Amino acid sequence: MISVQEALQTILNNTQDFGVEEIPFLKSVGRVLKEDILADRDFPPFNRVAMDGIAINHRFFEQGIRDFKVEGVQAAGAKQKTMSIASNCIEVMTGAVLPENTDTVIRYEDVAIENGTATIQLDTLEKGKNIHTKGKDRNQGDVLVVKNTRITAAEIGVIATVGKSTVKVAKTPRIMIVSTGDELVEVNEIPEAHQIRRSNAFTLVALLEELKIKAETAHITDDKEQLKEKIGTYLEEYDALLFSGAVSKGKFDYLPEVLEELGVEKLFHRVAQRPGKPFWYGIRNEKSVFAFPGNPISTYVNCLAYFYPWFAKSSGFELKEETVILGGDVSFKPSLAYFLQVRIEVKYGHLVAIPVKGNGSGDLASLVRADGFIRLPKEQTELKKGETYPFIRYRN
Amino acid sequence: MISVQEALQTILNNTQDFGVEEIPFLKSVGRVLKEDILADRDFPPFNRVAMDGIAINHRFFEQGIRDFKVEGVQAAGAKQKTMSIASNCIEVMTGAVLPENTDTVIRYEDVAIENGTATIQLDTLEKGKNIHTKGKDRNQGDVLVVKNTRITAAEIGVIATVGKSTVKVAKTPRIMIVSTGDELVEVNEIPEAHQIRRSNAFTLVALLEELKIKAETAHITDDKEQLKEKIGTYLEEYDALLFSGAVSKGKFDYLPEVLEELGVEKLFHRVAQRPGKPFWYGIRNEKSVFAFPGNPISTYVNCLAYFYPWFAKSSGFELKEETVILGGDVSFKPSLAYFLQVRIEVKYGHLVAIPVKGNGSGDLASLVRADGFIRLPKEQTELKKGETYPFIRYRN
Repeated sequence: MISVQEALQTILNNTQDFGVEEIPFLKSVGRVLKEDILADRDFPPFNRVAMDGIAINHRFFEQGIRDFKVEGVQAAGAKQKTMSIASNCIEVMTGAVLPENTDTVIRYEDVAIENGTATIQLDTLEKGKNIHTKGKDRNQGDVLVVKNTRITAAEIGVIATVGKSTVKVAKTPRIMIVSTGDELVEVNEIPEAHQIRRSNAFTLVALLEELKIKAETAHITDDKEQLKEKIGTYLEEYDALLFSGAVSKGKFDYLPEVLEELGVEKLFHRVAQRPGKPFWYGIRNEKSVFAFPGNPISTYVNCLAYFYPWFAKSSGFELKEETVILGGDVSFKPSLAYFLQVRIEVKYGHLVAIPVKGNGSGDLASLVRADGFIRLPKEQTELKKGETYPFIRYRN
Repeated sequence: MISVQEALQTILNNTQDFGVEEIPFLKSVGRVLKEDILADRDFPPFNRVAMDGIAINHRFFEQGIRDFKVEGVQAAGAKQKTMSIASNCIEVMTGAVLPENTDTVIRYEDVAIENGTATIQLDTLEKGKNIHTKGKDRNQGDVLVVKNTRITAAEIGVIATVGKSTVKVAKTPRIMIVSTGDELVEVNEIPEAHQIRRSNAFTLVALLEELKIKAETAHITDDKEQLKEKIGTYLEEYDALLFSGAVSKGKFDYLPEVLEELGVEKLFHRVAQRPGKPFWYGIRNEKSVFAFPGNPISTYVNCLAYFYPWFAKSSGFELKEETVILGGDVSFKPSLAYFLQVRIEVKYGHLVAIPVKGNGSGDLASLVRADGFIRLPKEQTELKKGETYPFIRYRN
């Protein structure tokens, strides 16, 4: 039985590169950027008027002149005008190009305009005021968004601004999620007394959807020949397989055996953790096979703790590491790493983790009351309120 | 000019109910649940075997018996078997129904099986061990997920388990996002020197996508008649309108005037904040019109600070309030609330907000380097490292 750290390292040593695709920029939210986004010109691209008002030559203000004849209007989106008489002014709009032969903008609030003349109601005025000068924010060629950023609304604005109507992103892997177990019936069926409905496969679909992966699902009954035939096909057609169930010590837990017969090399089986201990992981032709134990919480936490980092490294981005402060004492005797369900309360900028009582790895409904898991080290048995531990979040 | 608090309260007094729709459960991630999800039966629905091993009658172990003849196998998903001879055992698999006439499970690790007889290698054994008893987690009729929860992968599992193949969720509003301004060209066009590309409308689309709202977009040039005609149509066809631009004091900032002519009642114009001060908000027939200033950061922060809470209250869920610890001194003189861009570092469970230097509300690219905004109160001008402030997050 290997440790959580060894298991994770093994998985991270077996990441895959799924390549790059170019997609419409507005479809790219949540995807991983695979090119640097450069400024196509200076930002702003011209001396940009920052306030509605009038533009003048500052030297006339300095000479004591306060009245300026209005020569015209410079609208946003209009070509740059030139002021023909240097001691005049031009009305200018936010976002407009600063007219040629002007150097300072005074906002309407500080001006009275009457009979075509603007009177400035200020005693002092800084030269260059209310102008967002060309190239002040960024210069042409500057990197605005670096490769491997996960795209949010903030990046969408920048991508649009520089004219990238399509953008290069990491391809998402083709993933098949397979549930096993004869006790399972479909969601729309009424289970008999000894049966339950399929749920883990859908939980995994939803967890992968958070990563913008559109996974497919299948169910295979506990029949060795069926398992072998179907998994053989999936290994050809998909980039990675996720299983839920059939990896424990049960008589019908054929999965590890079948996978090995199909040439999937076992890299580990069983990790020193609770829940999720019987986790099996292997590879064939660089393709990863994640076989999670079938208890709902086991499947859930293993997907977050192992598949998520594998996907992040495969795609080139970094998952943010969070730490939280334990909000109550916890005692955990077994010599296993412990993924403890917690609810997060933010108090004065502190992330406080309140343990959520569940009834073990089968208690699916307890996930609803928690926001994530904290990973408590194998070595410790008594964990005290106020101590800090790593946190895996699944709810914001 | 009203305060941020008054502006927010005004908007929250004008939320709308968009009704309820029933959708396939697997499409419901991110949506707001509009029904309680009840346990359709006990959880677990039967005395469930929690470990692979053998099931016995505990009283024989108590009498000192350690050898138990294996009478058969109870698989997961098979109908409940009955052990015919009380002093025998049955091999049982995780997830299986506990066989009738047995009361305790011993895991394979503590048993040796040879020639059809299982020998228990334990000195003590608790009655009822390794059984997840019927109804231990939840009872039939218990509320597992409460109405108004935003659905995550955790809820998907529960919804599947209780057999809700469709689920009631809040309808999302029909939203039209309108950009204005003659200076704007499309993303795939090459702007002339005095032009820039449209970006705010797309940023808003992406921000609304986070809320699972699929918004539409349009662009209208700075022409009063055009504005009036098109906006008149949008007011009929959509539940709410979002604008970017044309609300300042400029000569072509017709929007407030046009909206009022169309019968949209102005509830406020200008909020004591930076950036985003010229924000205009009004209603017509209970429909909200959010007219944000056109600077990129202004649009962005106003959508997060006003539209997000409006949508949350309209849909019935609560946005989590976060607070963060200021990671550096900040000085801000104007008597305005200040939305400061910050990057978040999590250190020992503390959320530390590092101010991100930008060049004002036009500096779109600075959003890429930040994770959110902290709201600094209007009254304070000197803000010290270590103080705690409310935080609006846009990146996790």
